[in-house]
Amino acid sequence: MMEVWKVNEILGFNLIAGQFVASGEKRLRSISAADGSVHPVEFRVATDAEVREAATAAASAFDAFVHTPPRARADLLEAIAGEIDGLGTALIEQASRETGLSAARLEAERARTVAQLRMFAELIVEPATYGVCVEAALPARLPSPRPEMRRGYTGIGPVAVFGSSNFPLAFSVAGGDTASALAAGCPVVVKAHPGHLVTSELVANAVTRAVRRTGQPPGIFSLLVGAHETGSRLVQEPAIQAVAFTGSLAAGRALFDLAARRDRPIPVFAEMSSINPVIVFPHAQRVRGGEIAQQLGDSIRLGNGQFCTKPGLILVIGGPSSAEFVVGLQAAFGTELRAPMLNDAIAIAYRTGVQARTHAEDLNWLSPHAADAPLHAELFSADASAFRRGAPVLREELFGPSATVVVVDDEPSLLEGLQHLSGQLTATVFGENEDYECIASLLPALEKLAGRLVFNGVPTGVEVNRATVHGGPYPATSDARFTSVGAQAMERFRRPICYQNFPAQLLPAHLR
Amino acid sequence: MMEVWKVNEILGFNLIAGQFVASGEKRLRSISAADGSVHPVEFRVATDAEVREAATAAASAFDAFVHTPPRARADLLEAIAGEIDGLGTALIEQASRETGLSAARLEAERARTVAQLRMFAELIVEPATYGVCVEAALPARLPSPRPEMRRGYTGIGPVAVFGSSNFPLAFSVAGGDTASALAAGCPVVVKAHPGHLVTSELVANAVTRAVRRTGQPPGIFSLLVGAHETGSRLVQEPAIQAVAFTGSLAAGRALFDLAARRDRPIPVFAEMSSINPVIVFPHAQRVRGGEIAQQLGDSIRLGNGQFCTKPGLILVIGGPSSAEFVVGLQAAFGTELRAPMLNDAIAIAYRTGVQARTHAEDLNWLSPHAADAPLHAELFSADASAFRRGAPVLREELFGPSATVVVVDDEPSLLEGLQHLSGQLTATVFGENEDYECIASLLPALEKLAGRLVFNGVPTGVEVNRATVHGGPYPATSDARFTSVGAQAMERFRRPICYQNFPAQLLPAHLR
Repeated sequence: MMEVWKVNEILGFNLIAGQFVASGEKRLRSISAADGSVHPVEFRVATDAEVREAATAAASAFDAFVHTPPRARADLLEAIAGEIDGLGTALIEQASRETGLSAARLEAERARTVAQLRMFAELIVEPATYGVCVEAALPARLPSPRPEMRRGYTGIGPVAVFGSSNFPLAFSVAGGDTASALAAGCPVVVKAHPGHLVTSELVANAVTRAVRRTGQPPGIFSLLVGAHETGSRLVQEPAIQAVAFTGSLAAGRALFDLAARRDRPIPVFAEMSSINPVIVFPHAQRVRGGEIAQQLGDSIRLGNGQFCTKPGLILVIGGPSSAEFVVGLQAAFGTELRAPMLNDAIAIAYRTGVQARTHAEDLNWLSPHAADAPLHAELFSADASAFRRGAPVLREELFGPSATVVVVDDEPSLLEGLQHLSGQLTATVFGENEDYECIASLLPALEKLAGRLVFNGVPTGVEVNRATVHGGPYPATSDARFTSVGAQAMERFRRPICYQNFPAQLLPAHLR
Repeated sequence: MMEVWKVNEILGFNLIAGQFVASGEKRLRSISAADGSVHPVEFRVATDAEVREAATAAASAFDAFVHTPPRARADLLEAIAGEIDGLGTALIEQASRETGLSAARLEAERARTVAQLRMFAELIVEPATYGVCVEAALPARLPSPRPEMRRGYTGIGPVAVFGSSNFPLAFSVAGGDTASALAAGCPVVVKAHPGHLVTSELVANAVTRAVRRTGQPPGIFSLLVGAHETGSRLVQEPAIQAVAFTGSLAAGRALFDLAARRDRPIPVFAEMSSINPVIVFPHAQRVRGGEIAQQLGDSIRLGNGQFCTKPGLILVIGGPSSAEFVVGLQAAFGTELRAPMLNDAIAIAYRTGVQARTHAEDLNWLSPHAADAPLHAELFSADASAFRRGAPVLREELFGPSATVVVVDDEPSLLEGLQHLSGQLTATVFGENEDYECIASLLPALEKLAGRLVFNGVPTGVEVNRATVHGGPYPATSDARFTSVGAQAMERFRRPICYQNFPAQLLPAHLR
């Protein structure tokens, strides 16, 4: 492995506005999820002064960057994509070493990452993106003339982005949050996720090269090394105007609270927790129950279940085929994990969570194994009554390849139980023609519950496009009015400005 | 006056989901701003149970209301407008008695109120309003087919609306917040402003009649009587999903904090504080300084300066005509108010604020008068140095007909001082051709500062249309990404939902 590290000259420094900086004493290490080995480079946690330096550099770069012509910002996004592609197999090797994810998965994730950057590059050169609205002057209006009014958008200001553990590329240093913030004209300060520090530095170097190559102000991008304390500092920096975060409910809520308590509060877009309920209707069970069980099993075990859209609660409407359906589902579980979890903390949380569930009063452990066995994909079941009264263990996310199946008697029982669920990223329905009437009566409840409704498919495999919604009522996200994936992710980071009675030569170019 | 009260049969009750309710002990009285007289009816403050009842009724009505066809919701908005028109002169008389505003002003405000309702009625039957986005299925895509994805919008849920003191009609019970929330499919619970309780009940009756007439569920509208405590309760009700507020910074921030501390935080759209800086460039001073001074004086004294867009800080770039300009401005001040302030609390705050400013180290009091004189329109001046270093008295709003003028040396001094200003609703520039170059260099600073930039005009007189932005960085509002006036006000109360792979017959009508 040493060669890979050497080739990429990892320094373990913070990268602030194009400069490598490391004046602090605290250190973090990059630990391999694959084999527990420790990367030789010590990563230097950003000092408070360095956090401020990054935020201040971002604020100083904002004016020039937000007024860059869209074409130039698109060039930057394309250059970043090109530089990330240019990192070649070294990036994949390091990311795989740090996260335990397979090279194939990481290649696909990189493809998504650069596709996201290129999607925003395309989007921001389209005039429609600016939602320009012009109300003509009405000089003859009584009692007073109406002035001409033109509305456009501008960037909200420097954005703090928190790298996530489970998407070391697509939701990290140059992931969807960074891409959409830069697209909106906002400088970005990234707090690297401690789970993939080498990967983060490699990508940050790539971004920095792209910034330099396209002549953008260096302050538009910084990478900070650190854990919770560094993140807390960053969110409280006066120059930071918005926060994008993907991670746990506890960490996301802590950042939300800090941001709300600032002298000038700022929006936090935190994607935090979702159990992604799936409802399987009787006729679907009958016609293709085995196939659905297989699809769901695959979806739950995919990437060790370390996806925010992993289905964690399977609701089966009772019928003649339900028992068989549950048996089919069971067959997809009880297997040992073939790859490690993303990091030790996540592995321990999964083991602890599974153990707690094996003893939970409201759950039955299907396909049990020895308590000290390696990590397994786990299926639990619960009684309809526990679901109907909202038993907490049925409402809480367990990050990893686990799910709970509940056979409910009928739609009223289902509706009763759904009332207890918190907001979700997704809600999924499997049904046949004969089920449509029941599904229709259920839709209002599902619309209140989730940001994306899936029909006859699995919620994992989030598409990046213009129609996607990756967001939902709290605690799926901290603000259901926005998505963190897809074209609309930009909306989080821009605000409208109205120009009243301005001469054309003083208007921004896109409003003329 | 008794006849007017009798005609309208004011009860002083809360109006919850179509029912008059008054089980509490606490009372509020309607006091005339015009003559201090007290309305004979005692208004019954909502009990905690009544607050909950209103919120719960709103939640129960949500499903049916949000799925009402747009045409039916438009009918409701038009019916409300018709009922408010139908209140005739009784409404104007009561509102004038309560607020001290003139009948002419209130007639104009009612015209705006019903125009707002009708604008949203028009808007919501336009398909474009739903921002529908369809990404076609790509069944042949590799490695996996793409499902069809359709994105539309739904209402966010029940909205708490706080009536404002200064727009008893246009920003109160059936004002812009209520109109935009109903347009988005959200039930509304209004907390009446204690400054115009009779007006609030009259309008609430009108809304209730419209709800009944159009067959909508009664829970979509409630009016609660109360002060801060009632408002605090309402914001903490679990069923409430968003808050709209116009008022003071202290009250708005308190609601924001309460909402952020909920188990499930909700967005608060608070419009709170703005001094609306105006910059007068040298050539404009020379060519039409007298005219501009007159315009600004009129704007500041309009409605006793009780507008959130009242210019409170006039920045004059020093030149040969500056002294003359300030003299011209001075001529518009020092006059006694011809109408009372909106209520005692506002009058006292204005008097206290003026007194503090007369003794402020950084201010000169232009056209002084005896300390115990009746309320006057007041002009202060400050040195450029106080502005450059951000003296607090130059940054704080004084609600009422007062402003401070500062002659600054040049653009760099101006920019230095502008850095200290908080977010604003508006920023205004007066300039001639010869000033354009300087104005252009200043625009990035103004864009960061305010939501609406005005050229050669005054910021008061907010237009209600599709291009308007009535919002700005904190503390002008709590979220600069939204407007509380105009068509886009609806955006606050809706959220996107994506339907993935849904058969047409299960899609909402506007997505088929």
